[in-house]
Amino acid sequence: MIPPEARQELIQITGPRGYLDRPEDLTLYEYDGGVDKARPEMVVFPRSTEDVAAIVKVTGRYDIPFVGRGAGTGLSGGAIPRAGGVMVGFSRMDRILEIDLANERAVLQPGVVNLDITLAVQSRNYFYAPDPSSQRACTIGGNVAENAGGPHTLAYGVTTNHVLGIEAVLPDGSIITAGGKEQDVPGYDILGLLVGSEGTMALVTKVIVRLMRQPELVKTCLAIYDTVDHCAATVAEITARGITPVAVEMLDGVMLRMVEEATHAGYPLDAAAVLLIELEGLVETVEEQLEQIRAVCHDSHAREFRVARSAEERELLWKGRKNAFGAVGRVSPSYYVQDGVVPRTKVAPTLREIQRIGEKHGLTISNIFHAGDGNMHPIILFDIHKPGDLAKAQSAGEEILEYCIDVGGSITGEHGVGMEKMELMSRLFSEDTLDLIARFKKLFDPACRLNPGKVLPTGKGCLEIRQPALTSGSPVY
Amino acid sequence: MIPPEARQELIQITGPRGYLDRPEDLTLYEYDGGVDKARPEMVVFPRSTEDVAAIVKVTGRYDIPFVGRGAGTGLSGGAIPRAGGVMVGFSRMDRILEIDLANERAVLQPGVVNLDITLAVQSRNYFYAPDPSSQRACTIGGNVAENAGGPHTLAYGVTTNHVLGIEAVLPDGSIITAGGKEQDVPGYDILGLLVGSEGTMALVTKVIVRLMRQPELVKTCLAIYDTVDHCAATVAEITARGITPVAVEMLDGVMLRMVEEATHAGYPLDAAAVLLIELEGLVETVEEQLEQIRAVCHDSHAREFRVARSAEERELLWKGRKNAFGAVGRVSPSYYVQDGVVPRTKVAPTLREIQRIGEKHGLTISNIFHAGDGNMHPIILFDIHKPGDLAKAQSAGEEILEYCIDVGGSITGEHGVGMEKMELMSRLFSEDTLDLIARFKKLFDPACRLNPGKVLPTGKGCLEIRQPALTSGSPVY
Repeated sequence: MIPPEARQELIQITGPRGYLDRPEDLTLYEYDGGVDKARPEMVVFPRSTEDVAAIVKVTGRYDIPFVGRGAGTGLSGGAIPRAGGVMVGFSRMDRILEIDLANERAVLQPGVVNLDITLAVQSRNYFYAPDPSSQRACTIGGNVAENAGGPHTLAYGVTTNHVLGIEAVLPDGSIITAGGKEQDVPGYDILGLLVGSEGTMALVTKVIVRLMRQPELVKTCLAIYDTVDHCAATVAEITARGITPVAVEMLDGVMLRMVEEATHAGYPLDAAAVLLIELEGLVETVEEQLEQIRAVCHDSHAREFRVARSAEERELLWKGRKNAFGAVGRVSPSYYVQDGVVPRTKVAPTLREIQRIGEKHGLTISNIFHAGDGNMHPIILFDIHKPGDLAKAQSAGEEILEYCIDVGGSITGEHGVGMEKMELMSRLFSEDTLDLIARFKKLFDPACRLNPGKVLPTGKGCLEIRQPALTSGSPVY
Repeated sequence: MIPPEARQELIQITGPRGYLDRPEDLTLYEYDGGVDKARPEMVVFPRSTEDVAAIVKVTGRYDIPFVGRGAGTGLSGGAIPRAGGVMVGFSRMDRILEIDLANERAVLQPGVVNLDITLAVQSRNYFYAPDPSSQRACTIGGNVAENAGGPHTLAYGVTTNHVLGIEAVLPDGSIITAGGKEQDVPGYDILGLLVGSEGTMALVTKVIVRLMRQPELVKTCLAIYDTVDHCAATVAEITARGITPVAVEMLDGVMLRMVEEATHAGYPLDAAAVLLIELEGLVETVEEQLEQIRAVCHDSHAREFRVARSAEERELLWKGRKNAFGAVGRVSPSYYVQDGVVPRTKVAPTLREIQRIGEKHGLTISNIFHAGDGNMHPIILFDIHKPGDLAKAQSAGEEILEYCIDVGGSITGEHGVGMEKMELMSRLFSEDTLDLIARFKKLFDPACRLNPGKVLPTGKGCLEIRQPALTSGSPVY
């Protein structure tokens, strides 16, 4: 419970239009892009770093839990306020503070939308590389918290490879900086630790990112297959031949048909699977790589190989990929996305295992994923209103992740551990390592107020000392 | 002082041939590649992770300080045992444990020499990218501790970009792992924090690195200038035109002459400065870039532009660069290398300032450095036997770093803060940030036994609670 005095102090900071606490408003802030829910007691919208520090200090004086939230597009529950309390929304801190093209840097407030960075510099031939599928909505603050990836991660790496500096407010209200405009900064790499700490260590209030020069040429192609195995084998073969596309995305037949119906991107309705492959670079390099890719696809029994002939065709292919979740929403009442990683050579058996797990639970599972990275995104279709269906979907998701671990992979490529996968951390790490992770959490947040109940498995984490939050009655974790 | 019982317990672990503690042996372990000295009381050589954990536990029971050491080539005093105690040398843990080319990974013990990684895989067309000038001697454990760079950092990044996982022993003797064979591992990025923690948080006992495929073509060229300003201007212009060589190294006239006399690499004796530029990639790309580079150098008033015509010519040019420190040793009784970073556009004024500072102190300063990164390595020549000369060299070094900070740069590009630059940390970071850094140190090492007196400025660090070590009488910090 937020005491009335605390509420008053918070309103003093944000102003009368800078907060929400009516139940009908709060329901909009109790979920993210996943399936878990919990309701904050109050949402506050700071306008500056000083506002954030002041808010955090109030929560400290009254021992109130708090959590940051960008656009709420996360897929592992990172922004879900499991212990209720104060949610700090960054929608009023959404300015691009500086574009420094001479040094290829941009300085951003945390609420800047990912795609807006590229839009601000593309006329001058620059772009910001990490491109989550939610890039039209998700914010750089959330990207930093979850170390977000995207289709182009294959060549460009994830958020941590593109963030050079941050300013952040710690749970005691102090303001720190880590990194800066330069590539490597002296002292411990606290920047790297904070990026991907899933909103459990600090609230990020400023972000310095690397801008990249647009490639001379981009080519996007579509390889179409009659069997999933041949499609998956192509991915391993591309790596084996030493070709590095900037993106290798795979869509299976179920997904293809959903996407095509929604977007009319020109995907074949009768194929078993397709690869969406993108190449970027100097003209000569791309043209040479394109012929190599064409040869690999041919040798791996692709039925057809198409190259987008114009920017419009390219965008249409990507629109199909990037709007996949919307397409799923058209045909299934609910869906649950997982995020496992397997060695690239294990993509084919993993797809077979996903199929088997789906059949066992009587659920349809479609696949659309970063095949080049071995980063699987099975999308489990279910009906939230059918009793037991969510539990079945979650069991299927967990079984898939267990399989990923068994073949030498991991439980998250880019969505984070959050509240969704915290119990699986015990399968991946030793007691000593989990203890060390817990010590880090405690170092930043000894009172366990910031985003409790994430990342660490129950017993190692700190939610146990807090009351769970209310929800609006829908199924919860 | 190491109590006799502790000594006995340590010898039990290492065996009778696995330790050194006679004064004449210990003098070999009191220095690194820099100018500071302090003598350990005992050097132990573990053979396994379990040995390391057992050694660390003994030091814990008897409250003895300890420090790790690879090949002792560091340049900021990272391996200097300022509080004496036990030095853990990794020369018996020098095996390559696994080469996994299908996944482009190698698993290494910490004592593996940097160059030996590439030698082990080059016949199969792979290499390990970070290439410090000391790569024939320095070890991967030391590289991880200092987050080592090298000439090819410009394109490939530093050690942290190539280390995917480690195993390490914490000061309490527990064994942890961070990262793994996969690119991104769930949970906090403890791996990133430990890489570059300068041996103050943990002793690394196993390292998983990324192997890279050799480029199709490598071209090395030498641009020769009559003025330093034109040479420096070329570096800024290369970036401005969007060309990315894999290395852009600059040598000034003083350095050129020393290097040429020692190596006969074919460097011109009468030039003011040269750039050593390397290009790598697909044949067409490299050939196109070579013409672009030739044009930039011509436009920036290079007197001459040479391209190495054979692998032998290329190796000779690099031999000159990589053996520069040896060449300096031939003409000066002592030298002191600094490691500042400036924005690329500030290379020319920084070189003028270095010249001015040298004249002020009556010292010759030569320059050989990673110009493409703005990572300056002024080499200050002095005579260790001339009273006051070392102090003058250190003052000059500090003034150069102050200038780097003033123009928006930093105090270390790749050598680390160590004991050499810890006092300057206060110039770069706020009190809150320094406090946070200190809390990290304390999290890992609450008793301040591991490598005390590094990274943090006096008052923020923890050397104060320990006795300083003995030295053999030479000038010390």
